[in-house]
Amino acid sequence: MTMPGECWTYRDGDLILRGELHRPARANGRAVLVVHEADGIGGNVRRPCARLAGVGYIAAPADMHGEGRVLAGDAMMAAVRAFRADPPLLRRRVRAAFDALCLVEGVAAGRVAAMGFCFGGTAVLELARSGTPVAAVASFHGLLTTDAPAVAGAITARVLAATGARDPLVPQADIAAFHHEMDAAGADWHLLVHGRALHSYTNPDVDGLGDPRMAYDAPAQRLSWAMLVAFLDETMGDAA
Amino acid sequence: MTMPGECWTYRDGDLILRGELHRPARANGRAVLVVHEADGIGGNVRRPCARLAGVGYIAAPADMHGEGRVLAGDAMMAAVRAFRADPPLLRRRVRAAFDALCLVEGVAAGRVAAMGFCFGGTAVLELARSGTPVAAVASFHGLLTTDAPAVAGAITARVLAATGARDPLVPQADIAAFHHEMDAAGADWHLLVHGRALHSYTNPDVDGLGDPRMAYDAPAQRLSWAMLVAFLDETMGDAA
Repeated sequence: MTMPGECWTYRDGDLILRGELHRPARANGRAVLVVHEADGIGGNVRRPCARLAGVGYIAAPADMHGEGRVLAGDAMMAAVRAFRADPPLLRRRVRAAFDALCLVEGVAAGRVAAMGFCFGGTAVLELARSGTPVAAVASFHGLLTTDAPAVAGAITARVLAATGARDPLVPQADIAAFHHEMDAAGADWHLLVHGRALHSYTNPDVDGLGDPRMAYDAPAQRLSWAMLVAFLDETMGDAA
Repeated sequence: MTMPGECWTYRDGDLILRGELHRPARANGRAVLVVHEADGIGGNVRRPCARLAGVGYIAAPADMHGEGRVLAGDAMMAAVRAFRADPPLLRRRVRAAFDALCLVEGVAAGRVAAMGFCFGGTAVLELARSGTPVAAVASFHGLLTTDAPAVAGAITARVLAATGARDPLVPQADIAAFHHEMDAAGADWHLLVHGRALHSYTNPDVDGLGDPRMAYDAPAQRLSWAMLVAFLDETMGDAA
């Protein structure tokens, strides 16, 4: 059981968004926006938030669907399709969370990163592509391609993408396209591929879905987590 | 200044090989064979050995040229070409070091990994391809392709390869070929690509060579190191 964080309400236009704040014992201004998978804020986003707070970051799950809704089935798929068909909507929604987080008490300017899983991974890559002044973004098993590739010089964030080589949603051609896009954009990017991992490999609950495209992969999850912590510390740590 | 380790002499047939052993304060049986760049055992291999010993591993630089020679210029290039033209020679020479390390006092069966830089990275990948029962191999800016790709099931070691996307010696096509080879072999493999890194990005002395294909990249080096430690711990740590 992972506990919800402190309520964190913000807006995207008229839509009320209900995120959370998970604060570390000793804050030092560093914060990470955490964007959920397709469903909404649940255990798979609160678990990493608790761990990020444990290593000194204010971890803030974003609410992408509005009113704190957790979706499933057709409603979830429809919401994801709507975002996928409208990159500006996706960018605006995640940008609203980023802008709001920057205004939270205790969050230092220039020390805000964003990370996400699956749909959330796609969202934070779009945040980077949009040129938002986020320090770093990290995507785990998110889609790597976009209808609006980054132009040269657009990405100011340091970028980490981690993916499973056996994820049917992210074929090798998409990894190659991401490599090409990031290189052409001149981004400071890093890519981690786990050879045996499928989609949603970081999510210990995913096996219950019975979807053959997805499986929890504990070693890949631990290696991805170690890379994330090193990546955040490199960008926003005391040494950075 | 990095100190040499304890002398460690072994053989490949009639050739005397002069490696080193860098022991941790508290040994627990875990050991890492460390294979040098094209030159031989110098600072760029002793520095990581000291750090590996600091996190609990017996670190053992291999001597690939024989008699502890450190080569430069034409002699170095000729030696590398000879290994490159003769994969069985390369595999036999690195296997000799692995076999010898397994017999060192304090080294536990099944808890020996191998890592290498540049030429040494290529060497440890060949060790894995040969089906040697090494627990893990990690290659940093080594060549990723081979004349003798691994057949399905041949690789029993966990594999990590880290490379720079701007390394002219390892173009994107070679990364793709490695991905394909490891996947077809069914290996437990992990790939880390640093977007802005050139060849020899882990070597702080490389800028002195004035070779435009090579440059030290401190953030990439730190991220690669964090991944290595997590990878070794995942494979041979107390949790493994």
